[in-house]
Amino acid sequence: MGTLKAQINEIAGKGVTAPQGFLAAGVEAAVKKPGKRDVAVIFSTKPAVGAAVYTLNKVQAAPIGVTKANLPHGYGPLRAAVVNSGNANACTGQQGDADARRMADLTAELLGVEKTEVAVASTGVIGVTLPLARVEAGIRQAVQELAPDGGEQVARAIMTTDTFKKELAVFIELGGRQVTIGAATKGSGMIHPNMATMLGFITTDAAITGQALHQALVEVTGKTFNMLTVDGDTSTNDMVVMIANGAANNPVIEEKGPDYDLFKSALYHICAGLTRMIAQDGEGATKLVEVRVQGAETERDARLAAKAVACSNLVKTALFGCDANWGRILAAVGYSGADFDPLTVDISIHSPAGSEQMAKNGAGIPFDEKKARQILEQKEIVITIDLHQGQGNALVWTCDFSYDYVKINADYRT
Amino acid sequence: MGTLKAQINEIAGKGVTAPQGFLAAGVEAAVKKPGKRDVAVIFSTKPAVGAAVYTLNKVQAAPIGVTKANLPHGYGPLRAAVVNSGNANACTGQQGDADARRMADLTAELLGVEKTEVAVASTGVIGVTLPLARVEAGIRQAVQELAPDGGEQVARAIMTTDTFKKELAVFIELGGRQVTIGAATKGSGMIHPNMATMLGFITTDAAITGQALHQALVEVTGKTFNMLTVDGDTSTNDMVVMIANGAANNPVIEEKGPDYDLFKSALYHICAGLTRMIAQDGEGATKLVEVRVQGAETERDARLAAKAVACSNLVKTALFGCDANWGRILAAVGYSGADFDPLTVDISIHSPAGSEQMAKNGAGIPFDEKKARQILEQKEIVITIDLHQGQGNALVWTCDFSYDYVKINADYRT
Repeated sequence: MGTLKAQINEIAGKGVTAPQGFLAAGVEAAVKKPGKRDVAVIFSTKPAVGAAVYTLNKVQAAPIGVTKANLPHGYGPLRAAVVNSGNANACTGQQGDADARRMADLTAELLGVEKTEVAVASTGVIGVTLPLARVEAGIRQAVQELAPDGGEQVARAIMTTDTFKKELAVFIELGGRQVTIGAATKGSGMIHPNMATMLGFITTDAAITGQALHQALVEVTGKTFNMLTVDGDTSTNDMVVMIANGAANNPVIEEKGPDYDLFKSALYHICAGLTRMIAQDGEGATKLVEVRVQGAETERDARLAAKAVACSNLVKTALFGCDANWGRILAAVGYSGADFDPLTVDISIHSPAGSEQMAKNGAGIPFDEKKARQILEQKEIVITIDLHQGQGNALVWTCDFSYDYVKINADYRT
Repeated sequence: MGTLKAQINEIAGKGVTAPQGFLAAGVEAAVKKPGKRDVAVIFSTKPAVGAAVYTLNKVQAAPIGVTKANLPHGYGPLRAAVVNSGNANACTGQQGDADARRMADLTAELLGVEKTEVAVASTGVIGVTLPLARVEAGIRQAVQELAPDGGEQVARAIMTTDTFKKELAVFIELGGRQVTIGAATKGSGMIHPNMATMLGFITTDAAITGQALHQALVEVTGKTFNMLTVDGDTSTNDMVVMIANGAANNPVIEEKGPDYDLFKSALYHICAGLTRMIAQDGEGATKLVEVRVQGAETERDARLAAKAVACSNLVKTALFGCDANWGRILAAVGYSGADFDPLTVDISIHSPAGSEQMAKNGAGIPFDEKKARQILEQKEIVITIDLHQGQGNALVWTCDFSYDYVKINADYRT
């Protein structure tokens, strides 16, 4: 992993239009308040393949259904993505289905591609019918304004309660060719593991089979976006869609081998980076929190334990208060469903301000409360829980829980 | 159920000393801040049987272990309960076990009963060793002050972040004898289904077999305290213990028959009433919320759906903001794991201010936003979700989620 990591190069200030052969635009269509971009289109100028992963919520927004229908095997020919923010087009009945279909079809028509080659996504308020005429006008304008530097507009147009745009790009070398991956994502609240976490759009000029693209996306999102929780609520809308157009002319990546491994590593770099950004920007968050569970009997136990800690309102309010309340952490492991021995658990915290262990063998040990508070006052905190049962590890990202989460969500619709 | 209910009579202002043959006291032992009672003893002057149910958290506080050892089949001879607040004696290692054992043994010695005839409980901060000398002094004082009107002191001595004391008593008639049940409970945060919700002490002068007592307690807590969630965190400490001393001289209640049914009904009345009080007093709560799911395919599906809605931070912050955001309710049902058809779900709200339906067949319908707000501005709200799949019903109690929850929990220890 270390040698692969050394081969991944970040491209500062770039997103979905960093790879060759991609155009994008984000425009103001008055779905959100005036002055904010809310409709975006991403377009591959060359034939391309796409893959997508979706929320596991049983209630799925209309655009999810359309995108799934267009990618019946999880992957397939895909040239474009169209997205609006400000309205989720979820729980909108048959009208919603027709509206999502219309978004995809209009985009395909304007771009001159097949109707099945467009992914469609929406994010925003649930249960309100889409203002379709305005969205259509937005799509027309976006298609006209498509540009090779439009990536940032996309990152802005998909924001809802996000306080900053989230985009990343990296390049690697495969078979002597430079291969680039770019991405934009949004997410701040209603964010919980099992996909269902956010919207993500990832582009690459890699030449890669649809199957390999889908496999890499599933593997990487399983360890990144799916290991992120802000508030324990799983959304109706979220998806990550990736488009690969082969413009880099690298030897086609198959599902195995060193090229696949390096490509997957680069994709992990992108997705882990964006995951951290989403956690950092969690609604009302004042700090980014990494919960690391190690020494679990199995990976599943590690994941259960880490997710329970990351989801605990009591842990997260204590982190907001810079209170090293390790008892709440241990209690959360206790009800997580993970198999472990309460008498072998060690708990410690780490941040740029230092490290402090608070519990050993399931019981408190004397620790420096003042130093613990200093550690927790930092912007990025790691909680490490060692179960001393085996080799299972997991890493979950979350944020603390502040007054502002309540404020943001007490009156979101009105 | 209706005719049974008519036979249950509340006794105003009474708790665990309402039944005959029970004494109690709660004293200040300086475990909590000065001026607050924090150690209590409940004592049956006659031989009695007890039963208990416990948290399902894998991390269990020391007193849970001692009480379980004293009631190896879930029930058995029991004469007294001793409890402290301010310190949970959880995650305190071998010292904690010894301290909990000492609390029970000292109480037994002072009362002249068997060491196995005492239940012990603690509630408060996790991970701090009990100030045993002060607790012992408190137990000595409480035993000296035991009185037939000491019930209220118990209700006060077990409070932590509770803002009001919670006690209830009822009587019924069995075989021509008046049978009384009294109870005190505490609970405000770290409250989540699967026991693990609170401390409860229930006394009765009923003559009843240990097995019937245990069965009634398990059945009733399964539909009351176990269907209550405040913050989704399952505690390490919680238990409900019940003592029956037979002083009413009714025909001994066995596990079946009309006497058992009426007794169970009375116990349900007590436990449901206390459950509502705990939800009402949830940390930072401004309103009591009942989530009713009906028409589920199975009871399990109904419970899953109701608990997901009751646990959703997004639903609960919207309720705090009096925002009829039914999309979040439907989204929570969607990720609950319940089996249902998203296209047959109806959602409505009710309160003393009226009723309003917001969604039909899984989609929004036009509704009066102003009236919905008025309904949600009340102190007691019912959310009804009809899945139209079958006969499965469930009722879960919770509260809304306010700034004050964060405030209370951001710096609880210090």
